[in-house]
Amino acid sequence: MKEQTLPIIDTDVHHSPDKKEVLAHMPKALAARGLALPGGNGFGNPHGVNRRDATPPGGGEACSDPAYTLEHHFVPNQIRYGILHPAGLLAAGVSADYRYAAALCSAYNDYMLESWLSFDPRYVGAILVAPNWPEAAAREIRRLGGRPEFREIIMTSASESPLGREQYWPIYEAACEMGLPVAVHPGAEGNGISNRPYAGMPSSYFEWHTSLSQNYMGQIASLAIEGVFNQFPELKFVAIEGGIAWLPHLLWRLDKNWKALRELTPWLTEPPSELIRRHVRLTTQPIEEPEKPEHLLQIFDMIHAEETLMFSSDYPHWDGDDPRFVLPRKLDEAARKRIFYDNAAELYGLPPQESTVSEEAANSATPTN
Amino acid sequence: MKEQTLPIIDTDVHHSPDKKEVLAHMPKALAARGLALPGGNGFGNPHGVNRRDATPPGGGEACSDPAYTLEHHFVPNQIRYGILHPAGLLAAGVSADYRYAAALCSAYNDYMLESWLSFDPRYVGAILVAPNWPEAAAREIRRLGGRPEFREIIMTSASESPLGREQYWPIYEAACEMGLPVAVHPGAEGNGISNRPYAGMPSSYFEWHTSLSQNYMGQIASLAIEGVFNQFPELKFVAIEGGIAWLPHLLWRLDKNWKALRELTPWLTEPPSELIRRHVRLTTQPIEEPEKPEHLLQIFDMIHAEETLMFSSDYPHWDGDDPRFVLPRKLDEAARKRIFYDNAAELYGLPPQESTVSEEAANSATPTN
Repeated sequence: MKEQTLPIIDTDVHHSPDKKEVLAHMPKALAARGLALPGGNGFGNPHGVNRRDATPPGGGEACSDPAYTLEHHFVPNQIRYGILHPAGLLAAGVSADYRYAAALCSAYNDYMLESWLSFDPRYVGAILVAPNWPEAAAREIRRLGGRPEFREIIMTSASESPLGREQYWPIYEAACEMGLPVAVHPGAEGNGISNRPYAGMPSSYFEWHTSLSQNYMGQIASLAIEGVFNQFPELKFVAIEGGIAWLPHLLWRLDKNWKALRELTPWLTEPPSELIRRHVRLTTQPIEEPEKPEHLLQIFDMIHAEETLMFSSDYPHWDGDDPRFVLPRKLDEAARKRIFYDNAAELYGLPPQESTVSEEAANSATPTN
Repeated sequence: MKEQTLPIIDTDVHHSPDKKEVLAHMPKALAARGLALPGGNGFGNPHGVNRRDATPPGGGEACSDPAYTLEHHFVPNQIRYGILHPAGLLAAGVSADYRYAAALCSAYNDYMLESWLSFDPRYVGAILVAPNWPEAAAREIRRLGGRPEFREIIMTSASESPLGREQYWPIYEAACEMGLPVAVHPGAEGNGISNRPYAGMPSSYFEWHTSLSQNYMGQIASLAIEGVFNQFPELKFVAIEGGIAWLPHLLWRLDKNWKALRELTPWLTEPPSELIRRHVRLTTQPIEEPEKPEHLLQIFDMIHAEETLMFSSDYPHWDGDDPRFVLPRKLDEAARKRIFYDNAAELYGLPPQESTVSEEAANSATPTN
């Protein structure tokens, strides 16, 4: 079996926070309601969404044990750092009860500092915020953004309005102030107060999941056209788990329309594709798998993958990608290293490859602090 | 200046029907309301949507004069046949008043038989239907589908629900019965009863227009996943004016999810990409214009353009494509001929290239019947 030897920063690991512990950090009156988030539309994956072997030996939910997660995922895959995103809490961002949502996000963030993030330095935290109350999200970003344990802001990609609109700008302002990238993650599309997605509500998990990337296209078009990247020249936006092969179309269509219609957007003084190349990062999983492998390599060229793409496993989810097989075989070593490590290290301000712990040290799952 | 010498079937010409004449074909009580269709969201192209030189010398709306349209567009561009789609009437398909909408569609279709379609055989008609009342649409398709003047069914791509759902199947059933392809055209996205598009309602024409292709992805995913092409193995679906470079992503993502989730769709016994390749046709305009021309050639390879793509000019619209420049320079002659002519000839049952009128005859704008 092929071995994975390059060091990796995994930009999307779904840990399962201890819900009782999270609720214990909320005001009592809100915690009394339990985990009260908007539900989905009834469809789901008939096989569940988690790898069965991600369940800790002692039981519990997949990826709920920090020690086992290192042993099962980080060590064998040479993961030097993994950005943790919470399973089950992103829907806070589409809750009609924006006060409850903001309190839940804060509670999760406090819980994280005490649990996973103090367990091992390989765990990198993301500040959870709910975009349905941008001012509260901005406060939360300022409250915790100075802590080195947190290196990203995470929120749901499902929103009531397109994320470029000025109502969301307080989030981007605070993110830039704290020097953190804003990442979005799918999962709540069509739920709660979010816009009805796609060509209308899909009728199955298969259709819903296939179409998630459409929402990303709309969000990135909105961010670019509304001038978010002009207003916030330091902002980086991470589109997690939305695929990559649609980006060329979006870039080319934006640029073509910009040439003809930029009178409508006088703040756009350069082609939108340039803005997106500088400001947007994509993650690999679920990587597209064309019949002809060279097609993926061509897509990499179209999107400047060596600058814009970062590896993600989506561990422990059903469609997670294995780093041994995810990148096109013919991709050169330099691009491979950037996608596996350097692009994320630069984005999140993590140590360069050379300075990461030696393989022997990493091979020990013992917490280092 | 480069000359266009290959014969062409133009799969998207926007003629401007005489609105008074159309209304004259409606029941009086409905005609008394005038052209009463849902409006847009207030944004528009600051330069208008029509080429100024498409205005007939005698005045009137762009592309409202059958003789001038032949002279100005068909003859110089070697257009042997052009599929006519009505400017301003597609929004019938998102009208809340489905009875009015159905009557308007029938009136337009009757008007067409008397006017453009009897003016010159190069004009090919499309039966206008409103998908918001599928049973009426099916009746209209059966009423006129046997007339050789009509070779397509046209409806808006904006819909209340995704077009694969069973509520729309009467349209596909009638289309197959009459041997006609079903084509959709953008323009009413977000209007009337249609689903709020994209990541939420866009704030400008630039954003709205850029994102139109997202609705196409949702519609094609819905058609494939819901089993429309299994139920109607003769059906062809034409996605007009939605771009092409997003299709590889959709095909690959569908196939990947099909491998894992096909338990949800037991009727799908082959990869969805195969179904789409056989059943879906795309049109060129607005063709993507990558920085590196070879990228477009690579996209052509990914989508099997030599089978699936048909030329369209979108004449007389602002972003229409000129056949002299639309295809990649390095595209081989055989593929070029298929895209300019053969794919459309086969789809619409039009005469093969060799049998079309000679260039001299075509160069005369005089009607031939």
